[in-house]
Amino acid sequence: MKIVTDHLHKAFESRIRLGIMSVLAVNDMLDFNTLKDYLDVTDGNLASHLKALEKEAFIDVKKSFIGRKPNTKYFMTELGKKAFTDHLKALEKLIKSQQ
Amino acid sequence: MKIVTDHLHKAFESRIRLGIMSVLAVNDMLDFNTLKDYLDVTDGNLASHLKALEKEAFIDVKKSFIGRKPNTKYFMTELGKKAFTDHLKALEKLIKSQQ
Repeated sequence: MKIVTDHLHKAFESRIRLGIMSVLAVNDMLDFNTLKDYLDVTDGNLASHLKALEKEAFIDVKKSFIGRKPNTKYFMTELGKKAFTDHLKALEKLIKSQQ
Repeated sequence: MKIVTDHLHKAFESRIRLGIMSVLAVNDMLDFNTLKDYLDVTDGNLASHLKALEKEAFIDVKKSFIGRKPNTKYFMTELGKKAFTDHLKALEKLIKSQQ
């Protein structure tokens, strides 16, 4: 007797990680500060959640320079897109089971 | 610039807590073992998540006896129903923002 939370991915349990994925799903690439603005979190908090998603290979970084200043941009990987879509589908199913 | 994860409740971040609420939303009262069957979790894990939801006053317990055996049943409070509904609405909004 199992229920519909089965296909929810543990990596997306955190609201912040859910937020990062949502924002990266609709923006191709974002730097740290823009993500921070979107999500209204502290540097340390955002950094740790980004690292967790990077570790799952759900997001990746692209490092470059703007003038002499290093610039790191985050983007969603294909694996991340797939996992996030599956997660949203599972959430949708859970919501429908409640209606 | 804030996004749609704003109204997600921290108490429901865990899949197990989401599962408990989902199951209690469609079953008036359930005992520990039935919940455990539904959610496929260990005793300790379930107990700690139940305690967390009880602390938020989102669920409550009713203690009785079946013969001489104590029987504890869990149910969702009005506050819990409201919070869970709001959480599902916020999730629905997040999903729609991605479609």
